[in-house]
Amino acid sequence: MKEWIYFFDLCGTAVFALSGALAAGRHRMDPFGVIVLASVTAIGGGSIRDALLGTTPVFWIRDPNYIIVILATVLLALIFIRRPKKVPQYTLPVADAFGLALFTVIGAEKALNLGLSGMIAVVMGLITGVGGGIIRDILCRQIPMILRTEIYATASIFGGIGYTCAITWGLADKVALALAMISALVIRLAAIKWHLRLPAFELKKT
Amino acid sequence: MKEWIYFFDLCGTAVFALSGALAAGRHRMDPFGVIVLASVTAIGGGSIRDALLGTTPVFWIRDPNYIIVILATVLLALIFIRRPKKVPQYTLPVADAFGLALFTVIGAEKALNLGLSGMIAVVMGLITGVGGGIIRDILCRQIPMILRTEIYATASIFGGIGYTCAITWGLADKVALALAMISALVIRLAAIKWHLRLPAFELKKT
Amino acid sequence: MKEWIYFFDLCGTAVFALSGALAAGRHRMDPFGVIVLASVTAIGGGSIRDALLGTTPVFWIRDPNYIIVILATVLLALIFIRRPKKVPQYTLPVADAFGLALFTVIGAEKALNLGLSGMIAVVMGLITGVGGGIIRDILCRQIPMILRTEIYATASIFGGIGYTCAITWGLADKVALALAMISALVIRLAAIKWHLRLPAFELKKT
Repeated sequence: MKEWIYFFDLCGTAVFALSGALAAGRHRMDPFGVIVLASVTAIGGGSIRDALLGTTPVFWIRDPNYIIVILATVLLALIFIRRPKKVPQYTLPVADAFGLALFTVIGAEKALNLGLSGMIAVVMGLITGVGGGIIRDILCRQIPMILRTEIYATASIFGGIGYTCAITWGLADKVALALAMISALVIRLAAIKWHLRLPAFELKKT
Repeated sequence: MKEWIYFFDLCGTAVFALSGALAAGRHRMDPFGVIVLASVTAIGGGSIRDALLGTTPVFWIRDPNYIIVILATVLLALIFIRRPKKVPQYTLPVADAFGLALFTVIGAEKALNLGLSGMIAVVMGLITGVGGGIIRDILCRQIPMILRTEIYATASIFGGIGYTCAITWGLADKVALALAMISALVIRLAAIKWHLRLPAFELKKT
Repeated sequence: MKEWIYFFDLCGTAVFALSGALAAGRHRMDPFGVIVLASVTAIGGGSIRDALLGTTPVFWIRDPNYIIVILATVLLALIFIRRPKKVPQYTLPVADAFGLALFTVIGAEKALNLGLSGMIAVVMGLITGVGGGIIRDILCRQIPMILRTEIYATASIFGGIGYTCAITWGLADKVALALAMISALVIRLAAIKWHLRLPAFELKKT
C-alpha cells in the first residue's frame, strides 16, 4: 500500500479510537474498558471487511502499528480530555464523520486493489466505514447512527461510488482519494449541522 | 451448485431482504439505510457461515447477483409498499419464516457438500437461517426473534436435521430439500399462527 | 495442542455454556433457544478469534467435541437446575469468571503458538475471553459485562499479559497457564465480591 494511504489509514484509526473513547467516557468505563471500546470502534469495520474477503490474518494482526495508534490515542484521551469533564456536543459525531469518510475510501481502495468489481468496492467501503461505529453503538446500547434518520450510510455510499468512479475514469489515486473523502465528509458534516435527511421509508407500526 | 438450489437461494435472499426493508420502514430509515438493513438481513447469516468455514471471499463477493437481488427487492419495496402505509401484521414474521426455512436448508447443503458431518451441517443451517434475522433485530433494537418464546430456532434445527437425514438416507436432493424446507416452514408458520411454544426453561430472576 | 490444555479448553466451554444456559433461563427460552444461547456464549469468542486469525474452518468445526460438550452441559442444566427455580445470585458471574480466565489463557496460547507477538497474544486472549459473553449479553439485551464498571476486561488483559510474560521468561507451559489463569480469576472474583472498580473515565453527558 502506498505510504500516504497508510498514513491516512492510521489517522482514521486514531479518529475512530477517539470516538470510541468518548463513547466509553459517557458510560464511565474504566481505562481497560476504554481501550476495548476504542479498539472495536477503530478496527471493527476493517476486521469484518478482511474476514469477509478472506485476507486473513486481518490487517491489525499483520501490522502492530494499528494497536499502538489506538493505545496512544486512548492514553492521550485519558490524560487530556479528562479534566474539563465536558466535551462539546458535536465532538463525537464529527470525529465519527472523519473516520467514516477516511475508512470508506480505504475500504473501497483495498477491494479495487484485489481486482474486485466497483459494486463490491462500494460495499467494502461501506462496511469499513460504518462497521466499527455500529459495533460501538450496539455495545453502548445507543441507537446505531446508521438507524437514525440523518444521512449516514448515504455519505459512505456516495464516497465509495465517488472513489470507484474516479479511479475507473483514470484519475490519479491521490486526487480520487481526496475528492471522495471530501465529498463523504461534506455530506456527513452538512447532515450533522443542518439535520439533513432523505425522505424516509415509513411504515405504520401495526 | 445446482441451478435450482441457486434459484432457491436467490429467492431466500429476496425474502430476507424484504423482511429487512420492512423492519427499516418501521424505523423510518432513509433509502440507503433501508439498503443496508435489507443487505445485512439477507446476507448476514451466510456471511457468518462462510467466514467460519473459511470459504472466503464469502459468497456474495464471488457472485454479484446476490447484491443485485437485494437492490431490486429494496427498489420494489420502496415503490410498492410505500403507498398503503400499512403492512398486515404478519407480513414480517411470515417473510422471515420463508427465509428461515430456505436458508436453513441451503446452509446445511453447503456444509454437506464440503464433506462435513451431519451435526455441523445442522449448525451451519441454523447459522445461515437465523444469523441475518438476529443482526437485523439487534440493529433495530428489537428483541431478537430467537429470544422470544415462540418456536424459532427449533424450526431451523428440525429443518436442518430433516435435510441431513434425508440426504444420508439417499433421498434425491430435490426431495430432501423440499421435505426439509416444508417441514421447517410448517413448524414456524404454525408457531406464528397459534403462538405455539415449547415448555420454557425458566429461572427466577434473583 | 497438549492434552491437558485441551481438557481445560473443554472445561471452559462447559462453564461458558452453563453461563449461556443460565442467561437463557432468565429469559424463559425454550430448550432449543437455550442450546443456541449456550453455544454462542461458549464458542463465540473463539470463533471470532479463529476468523480474525484465518485459522479456518474454526476450531469447533474441526473438532465435534466442543458441540458435544455444549449439548451435554445444556442437557444437564435443563435436568438439574430446573427444579429449585432459584439459582444463587452469584452463579452466573462466577461461572462467567471461570470461563473468562480459562479462555483468556487459551486464546493467548493459540496466538503464541502461531508465532505472533506478545501484544497480539494479549488481544487474542481478550477476544477469546470476553467475546462469547458479549454476544450473550447483546442477544439478551443485558448491559454487556464489559460495559459495567466492575473490573472485567482488566482481568482478561492482566491474565493475558501474565501468560505472555511467563512464557517469554521461559516458565513451563503448565506453570504459566496456572499462574495466569489464577491471577485473572482472583482479580475477577475479587471484583465481583467487593465490587472493585478502577477509577472511571467519565465525561458529562451533554
